[in-house]
Amino acid sequence: MSFVYKSDPVRGRQWAEIFAREAPALAFRIWPDIGDPAQVRFLAAWEPPARLGELFPNLQVLFSSGAGVDQFDFAALPPGLPVVRMVEPGIIGGMVEYVSWAVLALHRDMLQYRRQQAQAQWKAAPVRPAGHCRVGVLGLGSLGRAALAQLRSFGFDCAGWSRSRHQVDGVQCFAGADELPAFLARTQILVCLLPLTDETRGFLDVALFAQLPRGAGLVQVGRGPQLVQADLLAALAQGWIADAVLDVTDPEPLPPDHPFWQHPNIWLTPHIASMTQPDTAARVVLDNLRRFEAGEEMVGRVDRARGY
Amino acid sequence: MSFVYKSDPVRGRQWAEIFAREAPALAFRIWPDIGDPAQVRFLAAWEPPARLGELFPNLQVLFSSGAGVDQFDFAALPPGLPVVRMVEPGIIGGMVEYVSWAVLALHRDMLQYRRQQAQAQWKAAPVRPAGHCRVGVLGLGSLGRAALAQLRSFGFDCAGWSRSRHQVDGVQCFAGADELPAFLARTQILVCLLPLTDETRGFLDVALFAQLPRGAGLVQVGRGPQLVQADLLAALAQGWIADAVLDVTDPEPLPPDHPFWQHPNIWLTPHIASMTQPDTAARVVLDNLRRFEAGEEMVGRVDRARGY
Repeated sequence: MSFVYKSDPVRGRQWAEIFAREAPALAFRIWPDIGDPAQVRFLAAWEPPARLGELFPNLQVLFSSGAGVDQFDFAALPPGLPVVRMVEPGIIGGMVEYVSWAVLALHRDMLQYRRQQAQAQWKAAPVRPAGHCRVGVLGLGSLGRAALAQLRSFGFDCAGWSRSRHQVDGVQCFAGADELPAFLARTQILVCLLPLTDETRGFLDVALFAQLPRGAGLVQVGRGPQLVQADLLAALAQGWIADAVLDVTDPEPLPPDHPFWQHPNIWLTPHIASMTQPDTAARVVLDNLRRFEAGEEMVGRVDRARGY
Repeated sequence: MSFVYKSDPVRGRQWAEIFAREAPALAFRIWPDIGDPAQVRFLAAWEPPARLGELFPNLQVLFSSGAGVDQFDFAALPPGLPVVRMVEPGIIGGMVEYVSWAVLALHRDMLQYRRQQAQAQWKAAPVRPAGHCRVGVLGLGSLGRAALAQLRSFGFDCAGWSRSRHQVDGVQCFAGADELPAFLARTQILVCLLPLTDETRGFLDVALFAQLPRGAGLVQVGRGPQLVQADLLAALAQGWIADAVLDVTDPEPLPPDHPFWQHPNIWLTPHIASMTQPDTAARVVLDNLRRFEAGEEMVGRVDRARGY
């Protein structure tokens, strides 16, 4: 019985150490050194190999090595195979840091100060208290809820939106298409933490931007294809969106001549908002293996019909 | 009996509304409309008028309209006049936001990503957990302690240094010149929140930088004259300090040809880390007036011999 890891091999070796210590009976193998394919019961991968069902006929669980599963082609996976997203404290902590940094940057006019610095211009804007700044988070999964808890600790006026109804302490929660307009109308800094599905592809478009108050800020930490790039450029040109912080794009990396690179109102980072941390991730997977053997629900189990 | 306000007049009118409501018996006047100088018992000022004792012979308390009192020339003030710094939740909240933003920016390599963006370079650095990042705050007054509490909530490994011994929950506290080397040796991101005194003028110099680990980050939110500018430029040139976020300089504003403006490793903001918020500040001053009348200690009372 073996566990195959198919992702960054440097991190794979950190997983291997933890598995050797905590689950010595389970053979841990790093792709492409897979051993006997019939022995492979578990696979952790960013991109699974082609014809997965034929390659590993006895596969029992597929773990994503990252927070998303949009890189998986569900139609190409064996129909009954359980799929598990990565829900681990390291990836949550990194996202909380990035979202806090980006929201504070927009709240405190840091892109404006950067433009002024380039022009040797010393000019202070008034400091508004966080309590007068309305932040809204799209997506209320483990990442969105953790980000909101940290934003609340700064005193921001916080709301969240998700497809289905959620309750989050101290956060005004909106649900479904019917409540999206009210959520957008009150949101001065919008954070997108939605999963990529057929429904969220192209979600951040001109129709959505037009429902935000003029001069809003955008933080995009979901997935690149959710953003209609031409619509963002138009909204920035009109000042409808004042500044945007983008960590994900389509494609990644962006081509060198893409207008986002040199745009004075865009802060671009190369998909680094958060990364799986090997030590905590390996422990979460080991705990899920224990749950699987015991017939319990695994943390991060994906609803394949829903797409996340 | 009157209270004179001598600072930004727009904010002064906000103070006036609150005083009119909460202390209607006290005449509130905005400089230069001071009325009868003999009636003036209280002055809130950023820069007090010259020959203060002669101008207002019956002055009982001088309030600074900002967090610092280094803009006061103590020798020119009546010797026994009580002086009070501004300790109010608005100014604390603003500083917590700025310090959190700056420390997160350094921790997450945001200046490096900004340089890469200018070159259309998509290159991710590893994400280190906050628990592996050692942040140190110089100055453990109300601002330093509040900043540390917020940094701890991200999981940073936090320490603080001050002249006299302090205790702060979850923070390793160092005190006095003897313990400064040990504090610096463990600090990867250094935040300066010291008051400006004769002892802290030129404090951030080559001798101090040399005691930090190579590649450290610097956040300067104290006062401009604490930093030896040539020493910072040398430390940045050597890579000893990787990046610096500066909110205060000497002079302010910086002249247009100053090397800080265009330095790729310096993020410069125009002394906006925090500002007194009129609504909360006026209430704090009213509470201090009540304390003064009752013979109690005022919050933020300055030790003039110590200078803060």
